[in-house]
Amino acid sequence: KSIGEKGPLHLQPVHQAYPTKESLQPKRYQAHLIGTTYAYDFPDLFSKALQNLWVKERAANPALVLPKTLLDSRELVMDENDQLVELDRAPGNNTFGMVGWVFTMRTPEYPNGRKAVIIANDITFKIGSFGPQEDQFFYLASQYARSLGIPRIYLSANSGARIGLAEEAMSLFNAAWNDKNHPEKGISYLYLTHENWLKIQEKAAGAVLTVEVEEDGERRHKITDVIGLQDGLGVECLKGSGLIAGETSRAYDDIFTITLVTARSVGIGAYLVRLGERAVQVEGQPIILTGAPALNKVLGREVYTSNLQLGGTQIMHKNGVSHLTANSDLEGATHILEWLSYVPEEKGAKLPVREVSDPWDREIGYVPPKGAYDPRWFIQGKTDETSSEYLNGRRWARAPWRNPHGCDRVETRTIERVIPADPANPASFEQRIMEAGQVWYPNSAYKTAQAIFDFNREGLPLIIFANWRGFSGGQQDMYDEVLKQGSKIVDGLSAYKQPVFVYIVPNGELRGGVLEPEGIIEIKMRRDKIITLMERLDSQYAMLKKESKDASKTAEERAAAADLLEKREQLLQPTYKQMALLYADLHDRTGRMEAKGCARPAVWKEARRHFYWAARARIARSSALAQLAAASPDATLEYRTKLLDSLAQLDSTANNRTIAEALEALDLKSTVAQLKSDHLARQLLQTTQED
Amino acid sequence: KSIGEKGPLHLQPVHQAYPTKESLQPKRYQAHLIGTTYAYDFPDLFSKALQNLWVKERAANPALVLPKTLLDSRELVMDENDQLVELDRAPGNNTFGMVGWVFTMRTPEYPNGRKAVIIANDITFKIGSFGPQEDQFFYLASQYARSLGIPRIYLSANSGARIGLAEEAMSLFNAAWNDKNHPEKGISYLYLTHENWLKIQEKAAGAVLTVEVEEDGERRHKITDVIGLQDGLGVECLKGSGLIAGETSRAYDDIFTITLVTARSVGIGAYLVRLGERAVQVEGQPIILTGAPALNKVLGREVYTSNLQLGGTQIMHKNGVSHLTANSDLEGATHILEWLSYVPEEKGAKLPVREVSDPWDREIGYVPPKGAYDPRWFIQGKTDETSSEYLNGRRWARAPWRNPHGCDRVETRTIERVIPADPANPASFEQRIMEAGQVWYPNSAYKTAQAIFDFNREGLPLIIFANWRGFSGGQQDMYDEVLKQGSKIVDGLSAYKQPVFVYIVPNGELRGGVLEPEGIIEIKMRRDKIITLMERLDSQYAMLKKESKDASKTAEERAAAADLLEKREQLLQPTYKQMALLYADLHDRTGRMEAKGCARPAVWKEARRHFYWAARARIARSSALAQLAAASPDATLEYRTKLLDSLAQLDSTANNRTIAEALEALDLKSTVAQLKSDHLARQLLQTTQED
Repeated sequence: KSIGEKGPLHLQPVHQAYPTKESLQPKRYQAHLIGTTYAYDFPDLFSKALQNLWVKERAANPALVLPKTLLDSRELVMDENDQLVELDRAPGNNTFGMVGWVFTMRTPEYPNGRKAVIIANDITFKIGSFGPQEDQFFYLASQYARSLGIPRIYLSANSGARIGLAEEAMSLFNAAWNDKNHPEKGISYLYLTHENWLKIQEKAAGAVLTVEVEEDGERRHKITDVIGLQDGLGVECLKGSGLIAGETSRAYDDIFTITLVTARSVGIGAYLVRLGERAVQVEGQPIILTGAPALNKVLGREVYTSNLQLGGTQIMHKNGVSHLTANSDLEGATHILEWLSYVPEEKGAKLPVREVSDPWDREIGYVPPKGAYDPRWFIQGKTDETSSEYLNGRRWARAPWRNPHGCDRVETRTIERVIPADPANPASFEQRIMEAGQVWYPNSAYKTAQAIFDFNREGLPLIIFANWRGFSGGQQDMYDEVLKQGSKIVDGLSAYKQPVFVYIVPNGELRGGVLEPEGIIEIKMRRDKIITLMERLDSQYAMLKKESKDASKTAEERAAAADLLEKREQLLQPTYKQMALLYADLHDRTGRMEAKGCARPAVWKEARRHFYWAARARIARSSALAQLAAASPDATLEYRTKLLDSLAQLDSTANNRTIAEALEALDLKSTVAQLKSDHLARQLLQTTQED
Repeated sequence: KSIGEKGPLHLQPVHQAYPTKESLQPKRYQAHLIGTTYAYDFPDLFSKALQNLWVKERAANPALVLPKTLLDSRELVMDENDQLVELDRAPGNNTFGMVGWVFTMRTPEYPNGRKAVIIANDITFKIGSFGPQEDQFFYLASQYARSLGIPRIYLSANSGARIGLAEEAMSLFNAAWNDKNHPEKGISYLYLTHENWLKIQEKAAGAVLTVEVEEDGERRHKITDVIGLQDGLGVECLKGSGLIAGETSRAYDDIFTITLVTARSVGIGAYLVRLGERAVQVEGQPIILTGAPALNKVLGREVYTSNLQLGGTQIMHKNGVSHLTANSDLEGATHILEWLSYVPEEKGAKLPVREVSDPWDREIGYVPPKGAYDPRWFIQGKTDETSSEYLNGRRWARAPWRNPHGCDRVETRTIERVIPADPANPASFEQRIMEAGQVWYPNSAYKTAQAIFDFNREGLPLIIFANWRGFSGGQQDMYDEVLKQGSKIVDGLSAYKQPVFVYIVPNGELRGGVLEPEGIIEIKMRRDKIITLMERLDSQYAMLKKESKDASKTAEERAAAADLLEKREQLLQPTYKQMALLYADLHDRTGRMEAKGCARPAVWKEARRHFYWAARARIARSSALAQLAAASPDATLEYRTKLLDSLAQLDSTANNRTIAEALEALDLKSTVAQLKSDHLARQLLQTTQED
């Protein structure tokens, strides 16, 4: 029995030599040849990435003290009963190509440590292919992460599902020739002689299925199926692929999943990347379904020269399968840790909010101008070109309380969408399509929807900096399913579980197509109305009109007046169009939004202060309401809101700060317990009445 | 007080004339001009469609007696408290552009009547635009359908969100000229004179917001916002659009939603079509976001000549926004009723199963051949070209028990995907892309996933007739997000709530890319292995090889033997490749699938009998398990399965028929009640312990 914690030599024979790291060098070399890190070096690599994070953090806040150990890792190992246990095991002792750990990482948000499950392919074992054992381990490790509600990080480096041929019958089978004397004329089936059949029955019973036939006076066992003794040759690997694909789909729904593509990811490997949704791709490492050589074979000519043409970052980052790219595994690990810093420790836990040096209590320096600008500026701030002065932005995504919001910003600049030419289709060519700013196209609508779905699953509140003119409705976009993608935005917002804020930025707009003033006056202020207006406001026009109809004048005089009248109309036309536009535009001002209960006015410079408390208040409220709802599922939202307000002694005049502070200080424990037992009692009563 | 039921003249003055249908003629004429049916004529139209359905049904079963009344409709009307009530009201009495009914339809599946909520735009009211009242009615009617769990049918004929300009200030405002004497030089703002301002305050207080300024010695009220007294001019309509878009998204999740595009559907109208997902589009009626004239204005030239270019059936049926097309409203209504015949009466109710004349107890005549064929044939049957004999197919979707399964079939033929040229992009041209059969492309993967999601929501069991070689992994398809769409299939199957069957059809296959025998031998049976095989099986080859290495021979003899050896290898190469392919293929036979627990063998001719009972057994089981789970949420699936088996006295030897009959006869009422109170008692105990 071991004294204290189980050490790295637990369950090893007493004469086991202490492992030297050097024994792993051949495997390390193998991995480096493929361009990745050896699986067992990842704990050290993540530890280094963590350190980089702390150093960066300390640059902003020199008082910070680094924890002594940044990362503890315990390997996940399958025990005798095929159950996962956390263990300290020496590196490189894996018996199949999938390894895993539970990391305890001391991050700036969680200096006492946060946990995550890491799953990695060992690409040095059977080129990282997925066999039944690998699949089973992946499945159990993913379920382990879900049972703890902690993030699941997958380090992808593989060659797809494992394939193989059974060796047992390879050296024993005979062929039934179409023409005995001319073997070049082909065969009709494979069989075992009775002698060989007996051999197989003895050595590897069940490796082949046969039916007995009699042909050419010979007793033959015609092979109908090759099973093979070894597991992992064919369909069982596909079954395993199905298992882990389904598990990953559910894991994405359940917990925070992210993937680092540290080497090529093929077939089921590529699908695991996508099913986990969030992905960081290291440059030079493709995500592919079928390798270039195999595709060339299908196409019958040398179309592709590299797997990177099929699934490199220029494809997968552009189409949004990988969200971030990295130049090295270390950079990739850093990206993942930075992403994690916005994610609660466990599913449903509080957001990782912490004080940062840039306080909430200040004005915003940068003001979005009219026209095109980089939407990143109002979040990150911008150095003014003329004065070199740093205009501080809002720093939403990080400050004021390093965390938080899913942020949705709108591109105001016209961008160029590049559709690459496909080498396999000689008729294709590179297309460059201009897409106007502030307009939703099928691809940008899909991206918006996807971001909303992801933020929702990450448990983040959402701030939308709105500045949209509407959806693009041209033929190509209608054909490319802009309606489907746009509908997903509605679906995403309908299902959003955390607070959502929509902020129409200064000089921003939020419309649907034809509702722009130009469109409205086209329909609602046609020429007749404009002319009435001219007649009323322009005395000269009114006079000419009168003259042109004055029966006391001669026909010539009237014609001359009508002529002048038309010239006057021509001259005034632009001004009156401007007037009409302004009149229509006056319908779209903040005052009308407020009067119709659709929006509240806000001052941009004050927005940082406002949203800081608004978000805290809304988050505290929705978390408290969720607790009450869980305890008493039958109660209406109105009832719960009233109850909460009375418990926290809030009335309708309370501002966001008061609400936030009152709700955050509130202890709901006894109320929740009371509600729960009331609810149960009611249910019990109901059941009794039903009986 | 009315005696008995409230009649059509309820709440009307006593001298109200009996309404003559003729009074609706002008409206009917208006609707017909647009190409649609007047909203109040739809109950009659659906009644006629129902009759057609019965007539068709009676053709197969002459004993059938038609119900006397096929359809009862009660109009949904907002009462004094803005609540919906079911009422008999004379047609055409609507005060805004949205009407609704509850239909009770006697269909062949539900001869006693099934209910549905119908919502329709009245396109004769303000061209069917969506204002706040229309939105509110739509919202309430949709919620009504959801509260009853019954299907929601939307008849779409509209012009998008309503827009308008406030009239109150139109004839009163003045303009502040940039140059008083030259009005053509433009204006800087609009204002009211003090006199006019007083007028507005008196007549329409609140219609405009102003600030007082003094300019040119005049007291002016500068207009900052135009509000307008009338509701429905701008942002309030967008707010309403948001309300009904969100409601429709939730309704699709919740109940069966379907839309008939009976006239143009614009903007929010188009989104309602898509958000309800299932759509039948009448030819000649476009689904658009922005009209062609407005788009031409933006593009600066006459690009589009018709709205049908943007959203006609050639766009919307091709890209899957509309699932079915119809030549008339009657045909559209018939399509909807046929679709409904597969949908349970209420959400969660039993499937509409009924006996049909084509019995389950027969063999299947048609056998899918090798190579390309129409996958519809094995479902609907096919008339043999040579013998003119009708080969009966399986008739899944309808028989043997007129209803049920979501069916997923695979196209085996190469199809041509046509991407139309976009008139707005002069560089675009019509592209025709060949897509091979049995391969998933991004678009077909999306379609498969969408079908799975829809079937799941409709509460149907799913049978997949599998015949896939895998996903296409070429550059264009990788760029076009085949990974994203393929992942959705996994997501859909992971979340499927009803039984799923996968049936690999005769001569079908189910693989992932490189696993085809050609690919496997490329990797796993290279030249060295082939040569070993030759040496073993071909005595001549073995002899030559021996000779070529025989040290007792001269160098010339050895060279000659080596030469012959190479020639022999060349000659035998094709046969041995065939042998290798066969050996690899023997790994993919039914026997191996069964041995690895991945599939069970089935006989195609018997498949009708097998699946009839298999589906009934699985459906009965999953419905019983769901009842047990609802009563005792903490119990594991294993426990519930055991409990169910013991209640129904089933053991592992029971066949599908026994299981189906036992489970369908089982009454779970008392067990459920017992489980429920046990569960509550446990919870109560737990709460007490926590306190």
